[in-house]
Amino acid sequence: VTNLAARSALLIQGEDLTIRQRVAHSALAAEGSMMTVEEFHAWFARHRRRVPSAVHRIDFDELVGWSFQPGTGNLAHDSGRFFSIEGVRAQVAEGPIREWTQPIINQPEIGILGILLKEFDGVLHCLMQAKMEPGNINVWQLSPTVQATKSNYTRVHGGSPVPYLDYFRAADPGQVVADVLQSEQGSWFYRKRNRNIVVETTQDVEVLEGFCWLSIGQLHRLLAIDDLINMDSRTVLSCLPFSGLGFAPSGPIDQAGPERFATAVVRSVSENGGSLHSAVQVLSWITEVRARTEVRTVGLDLAAVVGWTRHQDRISHTSGAFFDVMAVRVEAGGREVAGWTQPMIEPFGTGLIAFIVQRIGGVVHVLVNARVEPGYLDVIELAPTVQCTPENYRQLPAQAEPPFLAQVLRAPDADIRFDAMLSEEGGRMFRASNRYLIVETPGDQQLQVPDDFRWVTLHQLVALIRHSHYVNVQARSLTLCLHSLIGGWAP
Amino acid sequence: VTNLAARSALLIQGEDLTIRQRVAHSALAAEGSMMTVEEFHAWFARHRRRVPSAVHRIDFDELVGWSFQPGTGNLAHDSGRFFSIEGVRAQVAEGPIREWTQPIINQPEIGILGILLKEFDGVLHCLMQAKMEPGNINVWQLSPTVQATKSNYTRVHGGSPVPYLDYFRAADPGQVVADVLQSEQGSWFYRKRNRNIVVETTQDVEVLEGFCWLSIGQLHRLLAIDDLINMDSRTVLSCLPFSGLGFAPSGPIDQAGPERFATAVVRSVSENGGSLHSAVQVLSWITEVRARTEVRTVGLDLAAVVGWTRHQDRISHTSGAFFDVMAVRVEAGGREVAGWTQPMIEPFGTGLIAFIVQRIGGVVHVLVNARVEPGYLDVIELAPTVQCTPENYRQLPAQAEPPFLAQVLRAPDADIRFDAMLSEEGGRMFRASNRYLIVETPGDQQLQVPDDFRWVTLHQLVALIRHSHYVNVQARSLTLCLHSLIGGWAP
Repeated sequence: VTNLAARSALLIQGEDLTIRQRVAHSALAAEGSMMTVEEFHAWFARHRRRVPSAVHRIDFDELVGWSFQPGTGNLAHDSGRFFSIEGVRAQVAEGPIREWTQPIINQPEIGILGILLKEFDGVLHCLMQAKMEPGNINVWQLSPTVQATKSNYTRVHGGSPVPYLDYFRAADPGQVVADVLQSEQGSWFYRKRNRNIVVETTQDVEVLEGFCWLSIGQLHRLLAIDDLINMDSRTVLSCLPFSGLGFAPSGPIDQAGPERFATAVVRSVSENGGSLHSAVQVLSWITEVRARTEVRTVGLDLAAVVGWTRHQDRISHTSGAFFDVMAVRVEAGGREVAGWTQPMIEPFGTGLIAFIVQRIGGVVHVLVNARVEPGYLDVIELAPTVQCTPENYRQLPAQAEPPFLAQVLRAPDADIRFDAMLSEEGGRMFRASNRYLIVETPGDQQLQVPDDFRWVTLHQLVALIRHSHYVNVQARSLTLCLHSLIGGWAP
Repeated sequence: VTNLAARSALLIQGEDLTIRQRVAHSALAAEGSMMTVEEFHAWFARHRRRVPSAVHRIDFDELVGWSFQPGTGNLAHDSGRFFSIEGVRAQVAEGPIREWTQPIINQPEIGILGILLKEFDGVLHCLMQAKMEPGNINVWQLSPTVQATKSNYTRVHGGSPVPYLDYFRAADPGQVVADVLQSEQGSWFYRKRNRNIVVETTQDVEVLEGFCWLSIGQLHRLLAIDDLINMDSRTVLSCLPFSGLGFAPSGPIDQAGPERFATAVVRSVSENGGSLHSAVQVLSWITEVRARTEVRTVGLDLAAVVGWTRHQDRISHTSGAFFDVMAVRVEAGGREVAGWTQPMIEPFGTGLIAFIVQRIGGVVHVLVNARVEPGYLDVIELAPTVQCTPENYRQLPAQAEPPFLAQVLRAPDADIRFDAMLSEEGGRMFRASNRYLIVETPGDQQLQVPDDFRWVTLHQLVALIRHSHYVNVQARSLTLCLHSLIGGWAP
């Protein structure tokens, strides 16, 4: 077990660790008590082989229980539950494109994404699930203990009960570690939110087929593997109350090089880490951007969406860009129901989702962007420095490029702190995998920061993630990726 | 100057007071440096006499620049700016009435409510404005430094510039004390929000006609006077970073009686004051209520609203209850434009807006209610224990009564800690004045607390008010009223 020295340094701080310190302690546990990372890989591969599944593209008229509604043209389930594909009109006051309509997923029900925590050998472990989702690259990925829409867990489709659900729906308030409604992709979902909840239990927990206990440090290591830790796991883990170690790590300030980067990450997540802007200044900036940005979004019938064409098997933008609405048939084992059909969104191209970070006073700062997406409930959310599909810009003049895209693409290997392909929601998105990058800019390099960007610390991001409407799902994933680098810290 | 001992106790804590301590210091300043409360009353009366104004009810067809739009029936300004009277349909999953439509004010622009702070003789003072609003009881009330819609301050109607606006629009980030978008009445406004901002200046400020400097302690005293401190002042003042004194006040815990109540209020606003529920538990409760509460609201054309009748001079509910939409002509001096006409909302009856509070472990706790209103952006906001118009319930059976209404109405005088008539927004509401009450329940009296109610401390309310979507405008007013009682504290 690595990081023993780091964990000891934490433990000698006192016997009564706070939940924040216990989270840090688990984050430093590169191996857990229940299985090693190597054993996990063997278990996951075995599980995946044993539960075969297949996903096929189908025509819309092969959908069972789903149809285009008369009049509205919305693609909806006959029960009126689950979700539907509708339209949205967005109007913004600035930018090259001021008004557009598009298809969008309407899923007003609030689902539960829950991770159960339990201490083994003094280390918090997360109960994780090998889960099949039709849109997943590799079909199987690692998901939270519970990942269920309201239609799922109230069993609208008559499936089997959702395991472990009662740990979250009937949680003892004293055992709740985090609990917050968070948005998902505002370009694909109209105001969708899920309840991200983490609950600790001290009861005995039966480990069902397909579930396993991993330390946060193990999950951090697995995050570096392409398309393994699914989006729902990432967003729930990002809601944990990270707060550093409860003491200031030693080590020289502003020393360059990746080996001391972990120390600067620890400082960044600590309450007493110095931030460039105060908490009030960050909130005031968000308020100012929201007050000045004029965005109107109105739900539309899918039939009223302009510039999109419905084919036999897809609804596409006339330019061929952005995404398609399509449909799949799933033959699955190990899920609530044995097989089903459903519509999905298939985005084009591989997205680039990147934080530019910089050590300022020895503390890692992240450059976030206040971003408008039509599905957000409150105008803007904080997004990564870069969040786009680069190939969309290849044919366009350089000034159309998003800020900082070129800098991220041209970053030398020595400045790359994290680099992995991670999948978006496999229950609604068909093979949406993006490159998640964290790029460090040398501390002496002054960046021009436009007014819709700000440098914030990890501690400030963690504080904002306690509340809804602040940090978008891509930035929450990257916050987790950045935090995972404290695994490299040694006292 | 009273409270000198209290202020001295604060000052000896250190020379470098934080902004939170400086706010507390000003809150304890029962008199300010620029005028006494007595001088203020004389100044306000003089001002009111010198600037005559009159408000007349008119028929809708006497409105100038406003008309019912063809097709939609919406009552809107010909410029398309300011605000409009439209409709809303609300659907809830529970309760006696599950679906209704009603007229509602649509004001998508975000206005500025700003208070400028400046230190005189070491005490923060607020620049306040004697302002005429057509709906105000007494016509004139005391408003923030700036109270301006976007149409106002971008001068759509060609009025004069808004004084002091640049202190807020071009504020140095280091001088911003509070800055947050806050909702207004969700029964009357569809998703309206204003930017509540407090900025400190160290520059010389010219005091224009109609403006004056008052300490926070003076404003707290004036709050006890009926219909004087307007709603916009109250909501901005509630956003100040109150946090007690920075040290624990002495005095026995749980001693009954109003004379020690102020000590229990000081403890309640302090960071280290013990709370019944942790911050995570309060957030988790809010998340749980939002996830479980199914509310759908859809904007409608006013013409599509059912159960409301348009007369020559008003739009009324067929039952005669709730409110009317009506119109006024204003003849005014001292405002941006000399005279104008506009539609307004005239509510019926006098509302009761009450906090039940209790000393728990010597710390004042407030019983808040997670309340659905059709205009809220995020399902529920925390509301007072009681927020209703009691006369609406006189004809109904007892079980239709809102929880705790009878208890508040029957409270003995000895348990009443605050009692004043305070006006709602006089720019949109015609003579809407409500009774604001704070009633203490003896600590040994166990209250049955339904699941949509929780006991929270002032410190927890203040922390939530830093963010949007948490505390409704009535509860923010009452938070300020409760906080004003620390003026009675003596070390």
